[in-house]
Amino acid sequence: MGGAGVEAGEVRENLMEFTGNLRRYPMNDSSWSASEKKLARHAFDKALEAALAKTMAEFKSKASAVTVPSQMWELEAYLREQRRDIDRTFDYRYSQLLYVFTHLIRAGCLDEKLLAGLSQDKRDVIRRDLAFAAGRPASG
Amino acid sequence: MGGAGVEAGEVRENLMEFTGNLRRYPMNDSSWSASEKKLARHAFDKALEAALAKTMAEFKSKASAVTVPSQMWELEAYLREQRRDIDRTFDYRYSQLLYVFTHLIRAGCLDEKLLAGLSQDKRDVIRRDLAFAAGRPASG
Repeated sequence: MGGAGVEAGEVRENLMEFTGNLRRYPMNDSSWSASEKKLARHAFDKALEAALAKTMAEFKSKASAVTVPSQMWELEAYLREQRRDIDRTFDYRYSQLLYVFTHLIRAGCLDEKLLAGLSQDKRDVIRRDLAFAAGRPASG
Repeated sequence: MGGAGVEAGEVRENLMEFTGNLRRYPMNDSSWSASEKKLARHAFDKALEAALAKTMAEFKSKASAVTVPSQMWELEAYLREQRRDIDRTFDYRYSQLLYVFTHLIRAGCLDEKLLAGLSQDKRDVIRRDLAFAAGRPASG
């Protein structure tokens, strides 16, 4: 009970630190310049394309490996989960976009270089969150 | 309005005749002999196997034809519908079994010959319901 309590406490502290980081950088529509919006839309679309291509490849491989009905229902569940995950992840609200980009970079769906044209403060948020997620201090 | 009323009336009468037929032949566990139960289980399992094989073949064909993500989500919806349809259809309660068999014969999943060992009254129910569903009087 004591051990579990300590662990839960640590998890809670980490979460508070993480959401605190996010809250310190509220991004609304007006904090994005026209060129940043264009760049963000392009990066977002490329990442969605990559996520769908990845799912398609996995789906094709799984589908061709199906030999018994139970595997067909497993594939149905897999597709449902992928669809919901993609729906949840690709949230194009400016208030969420930096968090979304961090998530997509970590998932291997987005090349950070596509975001090079964002303002320094936005890139700092992303770099800090990537470092936090990786469990190491932000460099640079 | 008048025309639609007449049609609705006809549909209602047909439905009442149909459910009346079913109600005249309540089949519970005790109205099935041991050999009939064995035969029914065999027929049921063969039909389930046929239904799953049919769905598998359709699934394989659709899966290999998927080229864009939207078709992948359509296939997910197709699988969900097929799974629910199979779950609903394959109801092994003795009170439902003759209706289930009629449905499976009509769907092309069950060879009526597999039911040849059922009692005359049960085969009559099935034949009558098949004739009714086909919109013609029962023969023989």
